Amino acid sequence: MNAPLRSSDLPRGFTFAGMHCGLKKTKLDLGLLLSEVPAAAAAVFTTNQVVAAPVELCRAHIRKAGQKIRGIIVNSGNANCCSGPEGYEAAAATSNRLAQQLGRVEPSQILVCSTGVIGAPLPVEKILVAIPELVRSRKAEAGAFEHFARAIMTTDTVPKWAAEKIRLSGKQVRIAACAKGSGMIHPNMATMFGFLATDAAIPAPALSRLLRAAVGPTFNCISVDGDTSTNDTVAILANGQSGARAITSGASYQKLFEAVHAVCKSLALAIVADGEGAQRVIEIEVRGAASDRGAEQIARTIANSPLVKTAFAGADPNWGRILAAAGRSGVKFDFHRVDIWLAGVEVCRGGREYPFDEIVTHEKMLEKSVTIVVDLHSGEGKARMWTCDFTKEYVHINASYRT
Amino acid sequence: MNAPLRSSDLPRGFTFAGMHCGLKKTKLDLGLLLSEVPAAAAAVFTTNQVVAAPVELCRAHIRKAGQKIRGIIVNSGNANCCSGPEGYEAAAATSNRLAQQLGRVEPSQILVCSTGVIGAPLPVEKILVAIPELVRSRKAEAGAFEHFARAIMTTDTVPKWAAEKIRLSGKQVRIAACAKGSGMIHPNMATMFGFLATDAAIPAPALSRLLRAAVGPTFNCISVDGDTSTNDTVAILANGQSGARAITSGASYQKLFEAVHAVCKSLALAIVADGEGAQRVIEIEVRGAASDRGAEQIARTIANSPLVKTAFAGADPNWGRILAAAGRSGVKFDFHRVDIWLAGVEVCRGGREYPFDEIVTHEKMLEKSVTIVVDLHSGEGKARMWTCDFTKEYVHINASYRT
Repeated sequence: MNAPLRSSDLPRGFTFAGMHCGLKKTKLDLGLLLSEVPAAAAAVFTTNQVVAAPVELCRAHIRKAGQKIRGIIVNSGNANCCSGPEGYEAAAATSNRLAQQLGRVEPSQILVCSTGVIGAPLPVEKILVAIPELVRSRKAEAGAFEHFARAIMTTDTVPKWAAEKIRLSGKQVRIAACAKGSGMIHPNMATMFGFLATDAAIPAPALSRLLRAAVGPTFNCISVDGDTSTNDTVAILANGQSGARAITSGASYQKLFEAVHAVCKSLALAIVADGEGAQRVIEIEVRGAASDRGAEQIARTIANSPLVKTAFAGADPNWGRILAAAGRSGVKFDFHRVDIWLAGVEVCRGGREYPFDEIVTHEKMLEKSVTIVVDLHSGEGKARMWTCDFTKEYVHINASYRT
Repeated sequence: MNAPLRSSDLPRGFTFAGMHCGLKKTKLDLGLLLSEVPAAAAAVFTTNQVVAAPVELCRAHIRKAGQKIRGIIVNSGNANCCSGPEGYEAAAATSNRLAQQLGRVEPSQILVCSTGVIGAPLPVEKILVAIPELVRSRKAEAGAFEHFARAIMTTDTVPKWAAEKIRLSGKQVRIAACAKGSGMIHPNMATMFGFLATDAAIPAPALSRLLRAAVGPTFNCISVDGDTSTNDTVAILANGQSGARAITSGASYQKLFEAVHAVCKSLALAIVADGEGAQRVIEIEVRGAASDRGAEQIARTIANSPLVKTAFAGADPNWGRILAAAGRSGVKFDFHRVDIWLAGVEVCRGGREYPFDEIVTHEKMLEKSVTIVVDLHSGEGKARMWTCDFTKEYVHINASYRT
């Protein structure tokens, strides 16, 4: 799924590390993404009002030092959420220790992220003890980047990364990014992380604008199960080490936006493809709605319908469930005008079955990537969302996550 | 699950039948509930804007003849939804033929209900041809009632019925009712039917008020998967054959309401217990919310969370998922004040883990019926909902429902 990553794809002035500190039994569970010089930073966080301690810390640190962030330390295996005052202390202790280890760095220049089970106390000592080795092992190499990408995984079956190169003011500018996410995935952030590093020069406010614009149609348009988590974070660091001129708007801004958007989209689709137990990615296109907002609401309802998603697990062309999901979305439309295509096959026209070959359609629906197109014929509004099918394996993974 | 039903439990002046007409391979798929005299009728229908043809027909017939409905004919195996003009014609033809067969009955005195796959044309000829035998076979006997209860089933594994007796103005008044529903179950009506017959005398407007009040805290407070269907109907017929005085309000109304409520609650819980693939019923009580409405919103979000429901499939005391679901419900609360009990065991106090015995709690969660109590400590609002766990079997049932 990931294109091979070479060290030359990595943005200048960044180092990476990943190691095992003991939060998980044997897998990598502690990662570091470091800019060797202060970097502009922007981030978006979960919309869940139950937020983990590290999210609160990141918000405060970006407010305080958003123009000179140095790094992001991430643990998997424990979300440090609903963990009481000790949870906040643990997050603060982590940024303190990392700042101290790096030298001449303020704790507020460090972001801390955690993912894993909610509610269990974080054994922070394991992280604190491991920090010296983590810092020592950091490298500006593809192998180290992959270690970082693996250290942030929970139920993910594969690491997920993406990279882009563009030329800005005559200089090569690079973006490298990775993400985690597999279950509890929902539009508006869910158990997922996305970390982006670029050597572009762009001040924090412009970077924040750019990140939000890129996250909207990518990470916020995927869904695995409709649940949203307490720890989600997409963060980008821009350290200017490419030597390209600082940008805030105009053609260069647009070019950087497009590269960041491409990276975000690639990672978002990788998350859906690795959805817990998923066999296939479902792209849902709703068009002909009275408004884009209405189209999006319908697409989201379809994307989260267990009945639609289980039908796709069996490659069953049960288009009635799609129309029924649209019908309960809260968006008004005339269902007698609706056309539906499954995997390119028209199955419903004017709100009723359009004769189609069940066997052929079933076979097309067995592909790794399947489309649903719903045309409401009621306007110009449109939207696109991605989800995955809902299999027995999803249940298996989630029935004993904690015990 | 059902108490044994005796013929003496059935309200007077009603007959029942159930048979196989060929919509399903071998199982009963056509049922009849008939009042031998005109009866007051009331019904509530799906909130989905994609509504099946028979729902439209029932609405029109109750508007026209709500004081003198004679019967309800129900088919399973095909929802007659998204079936074009022919779908409406099929529903009308069914009520026409049944009225004709009964003699001296208008088609508008007949209600028609269909459940099954959405979007497939209804082979209505199979129903029309079967109606004479259906009518002939009707009986005022428990066995016939059970045939009716079986004929309305789709993925249900057991028929579901409930009965109550009360005394009103010195007369014995009986209520007998049955329901179907297993998947696509959601508050506000989902793939479910509930049919109630009583020999109480109560005019249609009062009956409608009573039915709505009984459905609110029962059928509208259960959820299997959050999907809502296109065909849901709860209908009650009251034919006055008990001889009890007609009631519109007061103590007798209250007594009848309580009996109808008890019947609805019993059937609602039977639906959840028979939820597709379900191993156990989960009762969710939310209290201490700022309002009842907020408490209900939180309870519904928990009830529909795939992560909460899969955790219950594994009897996994993963309370963090419950708090995370509450956090994304859209209702404001201070999560640092929340207490949570699972199966009677306090697992979270003040928004963090309260030390508990994992093994003991796991064992309690293996029971057929498990409670979640969430206390927000932010007011007096409270709500109660019922759902079931989410197992591999649910996926198995729904992955190839159509093919």
